[in-house]
Amino acid sequence: MSGPRPSSEAAFIDTLRVFAHHPAARGLLDDAAVLEVGPVTLVLTHDMLVEGVHFLPAQSPADVAWKLVAANLSDLAAKGADPLGVLLGYMLGEDDLDFQAGLIEVLEHYGVPLLGGDTVSGGPPQALGLTAIGRATYCPVPSRSGARPGQGLWLTGAVGAAMLGYEASRDGTGGDAEAFLRPMARLGEGIALAPFVTAMMDVSDGLLLDAWRMAEASEVSLAIDGAAVPIAAPEERRLDALRWGDDYELLFTLPRGVDPPVPATRIGAVEPRGFAPLFLDGEPLANRDGLGWEH
Amino acid sequence: MSGPRPSSEAAFIDTLRVFAHHPAARGLLDDAAVLEVGPVTLVLTHDMLVEGVHFLPAQSPADVAWKLVAANLSDLAAKGADPLGVLLGYMLGEDDLDFQAGLIEVLEHYGVPLLGGDTVSGGPPQALGLTAIGRATYCPVPSRSGARPGQGLWLTGAVGAAMLGYEASRDGTGGDAEAFLRPMARLGEGIALAPFVTAMMDVSDGLLLDAWRMAEASEVSLAIDGAAVPIAAPEERRLDALRWGDDYELLFTLPRGVDPPVPATRIGAVEPRGFAPLFLDGEPLANRDGLGWEH
Repeated sequence: MSGPRPSSEAAFIDTLRVFAHHPAARGLLDDAAVLEVGPVTLVLTHDMLVEGVHFLPAQSPADVAWKLVAANLSDLAAKGADPLGVLLGYMLGEDDLDFQAGLIEVLEHYGVPLLGGDTVSGGPPQALGLTAIGRATYCPVPSRSGARPGQGLWLTGAVGAAMLGYEASRDGTGGDAEAFLRPMARLGEGIALAPFVTAMMDVSDGLLLDAWRMAEASEVSLAIDGAAVPIAAPEERRLDALRWGDDYELLFTLPRGVDPPVPATRIGAVEPRGFAPLFLDGEPLANRDGLGWEH
Repeated sequence: MSGPRPSSEAAFIDTLRVFAHHPAARGLLDDAAVLEVGPVTLVLTHDMLVEGVHFLPAQSPADVAWKLVAANLSDLAAKGADPLGVLLGYMLGEDDLDFQAGLIEVLEHYGVPLLGGDTVSGGPPQALGLTAIGRATYCPVPSRSGARPGQGLWLTGAVGAAMLGYEASRDGTGGDAEAFLRPMARLGEGIALAPFVTAMMDVSDGLLLDAWRMAEASEVSLAIDGAAVPIAAPEERRLDALRWGDDYELLFTLPRGVDPPVPATRIGAVEPRGFAPLFLDGEPLANRDGLGWEH
């Protein structure tokens, strides 16, 4: 179960985890559930967005629809899954036609069918849910927990574009607002990478925070070379870019000597579990507070 | 897409329907999506419940959890599907531990695993979503649209218990509140019936309204013998019982001469499309208003 984690939420999930012992649930620790049905391996994910928490009332409903779909498809990308369709839980809002236009646009962009769902009244705040279902293209399906010492840590693309995009959409500054408002799910990259990676996840909440989570799930330490991380922001914003989420790049580990089949950058290494799960330029980051945006 | 249908909601769905042309979506007209993945046929459904619309703030969160799960499993039952798991979209509320207790209770009752989902803050009103995924046990998967003239119209169990249960939970009268608060999904019955039925759906919004929907989907008229419908209420409440939902019985059609493999009652017949989609004791019901509870 991804998303923000205030203490009550963490407690809720921790209790559920004890109950969610089906292997498909992956202890509720992964980006998605992985369910074997006969010869088919399914990947399933569900995200909710709430007005005032995950998006602002002033935000364009079409952009909200885009992000809702893209964020879920990004979870499938992290599993190397090919999307089969989505189900939408839609609470009617201020401009349903604009939401619908954005929904159709993003689903057509990714070639993913709308399979069904539910439409309700209620709110404000408007609450939206999306379930995405995909078919794994490679088994075993990548998880967060497979990173092993000696392997390399890699990242597709760059981080920081969504940060600038957010600032542009808020302040009208020079960044590309689309990078924040209409993120791209790396579905093709995920499918290409799945046969090679030892661990993979999408970077939705900030590179450092998500790397921390991968380190914890894999019971290793990850050592990141901060200067090696490609950033789509001015150099003086490098540290901010490492902490910002919403870029939806893929973070993954590869055995030594294996090159990724898609453009990506080696940003660090997997080490035996040390003093902290995460090291940035040799400095241990012992506390996850402030590593990312728990938004 | 099931649930209440005020005009804005109907308009929203009508627009989406044009876009949801994938055969798995069944035109958004059925209880669930039916998706073929290789040799596997999946059945997928998603429902939302909103505080103040679908449940009251005073209602026990454990009961809300039960109903959320049971209503979705009932959609799988109508397709003869065997549940594989659920994903929960949970907005934190007043008593999360009570919700969790009810969730665990209902999932253990049905032997269905929690696969994943999302937990968010936000509200009030609290909004909850549940996705249920099942595997079809018989193909073709029953739909609402297969009723043909000359066939019999059948119902499992009785209607009206949820009505009395609602009144009991509201007024402390003599009905069994559990029948309303903790409905049962007819999963076993659905699986047993799937190979025999020509059409099937669950009765969630009222027998007359749901029969109307089956008649429309099948382009036939359904003639119901009101006196033949088993009711779990005093005789003077018969008409109310026909209009009340929440009993989650299965309504289905069978070829003439075929007996159902589970206890059920023949309550009418399928006729060629006549003046109205629905006839009750020979009287045409030309308007769907007031046939059921659009709650």
